[in-house]
Amino acid sequence: MAEFALIESIRTRCAVARDDVRLGIGDDAALLAVPSGWLLAVSTDTFVCGVHFLPDTAASDIGWKALAVNLSDLAAMGAEPAWAMLALTLPSADARWVEGFADGFAELARKHRVALVGGDTTQGPMSITVTIHGFVPPGAALTRAGARVGDGVYVTGTLGDAAAALSKTQSKSACDPQLLERLHRPTPRISQGSILRGRATSCIDVSDGLVADLGHICAASGVGAEIDADTLPASPALIAAFAAADRRAFQLASGDDYELCFTAPDAIATGLLRDLADSGCAAMRIGRIVAGADVQVRDANGSPLALPRSGWEHFA
Amino acid sequence: MAEFALIESIRTRCAVARDDVRLGIGDDAALLAVPSGWLLAVSTDTFVCGVHFLPDTAASDIGWKALAVNLSDLAAMGAEPAWAMLALTLPSADARWVEGFADGFAELARKHRVALVGGDTTQGPMSITVTIHGFVPPGAALTRAGARVGDGVYVTGTLGDAAAALSKTQSKSACDPQLLERLHRPTPRISQGSILRGRATSCIDVSDGLVADLGHICAASGVGAEIDADTLPASPALIAAFAAADRRAFQLASGDDYELCFTAPDAIATGLLRDLADSGCAAMRIGRIVAGADVQVRDANGSPLALPRSGWEHFA
Repeated sequence: MAEFALIESIRTRCAVARDDVRLGIGDDAALLAVPSGWLLAVSTDTFVCGVHFLPDTAASDIGWKALAVNLSDLAAMGAEPAWAMLALTLPSADARWVEGFADGFAELARKHRVALVGGDTTQGPMSITVTIHGFVPPGAALTRAGARVGDGVYVTGTLGDAAAALSKTQSKSACDPQLLERLHRPTPRISQGSILRGRATSCIDVSDGLVADLGHICAASGVGAEIDADTLPASPALIAAFAAADRRAFQLASGDDYELCFTAPDAIATGLLRDLADSGCAAMRIGRIVAGADVQVRDANGSPLALPRSGWEHFA
Repeated sequence: MAEFALIESIRTRCAVARDDVRLGIGDDAALLAVPSGWLLAVSTDTFVCGVHFLPDTAASDIGWKALAVNLSDLAAMGAEPAWAMLALTLPSADARWVEGFADGFAELARKHRVALVGGDTTQGPMSITVTIHGFVPPGAALTRAGARVGDGVYVTGTLGDAAAALSKTQSKSACDPQLLERLHRPTPRISQGSILRGRATSCIDVSDGLVADLGHICAASGVGAEIDADTLPASPALIAAFAAADRRAFQLASGDDYELCFTAPDAIATGLLRDLADSGCAAMRIGRIVAGADVQVRDANGSPLALPRSGWEHFA
């Protein structure tokens, strides 16, 4: 498969029509129209084989997840997705791999009407960089910086599933397909981000681990946080697969769930939680914002718990 | 150097203040304001160690060139540069390498007031993906699709210098510093792209090789082209370093010069060439657009020349 055929294969499979794409794949740059009065939200994430996914991961799952982790960043800002750029570095251009990758990418792209508008294909060690673009009204974006003392801390969906699936895979144990789905095909919480927009005081997606990611909110907002460990939402599949101590470690310190962690004042919590539940992805209160600078985790008696390793860091 | 220190080092070195950056590095996405009525131009290019640059290339040159090749794509559209995203994958976080890289990137970014607004740092085989954003007025962008039979074909600056420097480097021969500068620190022709905007009928940057890149214009425009080999502009340094046959091969088939190749009708050529010369980078007429679909190269007598390998292709 030559470079041109590879690009054509991806372009054809990822076709999503949007009026705001004035010039798509095939020139020196894409030409795009941002809606008047909206801000552009841009994020980029790289996916390296052996670091972000195991070498034997299905190509379609890699395609899905490379887009999902980027869409999750837009969800955390409350942005509406629009366009993606794809930089694909591959050791060889295997047609079946490329088609599988493009099919997985396209399946998620169609759900959110994301048009693939450009990119680059190069030969080298496998690595995928997606740059995602979306729109958000000025003043309504969710950032990490607005949490206030007294706000509740919430998380959408459940935590720990992806780490549980990775643990089972690495130990070559049987794994519940629902957990594997959460690892390989995470659902970016785009609708929930839109519901939170202009209402939550801060938001982040849980990609590195709850304590680490909530720590980013605390640092940006100049506050501390307390998490009630026994309130962390767990899926039935996770509860069936792991005992409480393992579950808690996955939920606090492992990333890759791509749920939203957000803060909101009590006065608006009821309405917000009802709207989220109506969207098909409920959120749970897991703690509160306090004065200070750290994230503390407490047991059912309110006693502090020692924290496990606090999230993924490259070059650690 | 931990991941956070690495990001801080890059952020500090690449600081360029722009009012249209509403939220820069440090949240889940950057928030950016595109000027009302302008289109957003977006392009992305990946730079892989061992493919796009030799492993012993200076970090600062890698930083410069990773941005330069992306700015060159904006130049080819006639766009005004604004913002960059940087996805940096490194085998280890060596502080001196990172600082050198950031200094080279920042030196070019400041020349064009490009703000680094986000990115990602990951551990893995060295690879750099930059996504560049700029603005262009609707209807005035330079594309590959507008060349018409009878238009002249032009190129800015001189061709072949980068390939000559690479050839000398690979054969471990002494090389004129001016040629090396052209290989390691190419000048994106941003001002020239602005001058051509709304005037040239088509444009592309010479990154893969003149014949290959002009071939992209021909394919997009549904025309053919003839190049007069003896009119190709060569630098004094190239003429001093290589005999005519080698020079011609570099000029026709090797990329990496990042000059602009464009087409324009004769009626506006004089004014356009004068404005380009006034900008400090003159352009030369090197051929004409004809009916057909191929790029033909002719000698001083008008006889067709056999073509050397036609440009770089990954996975070839």
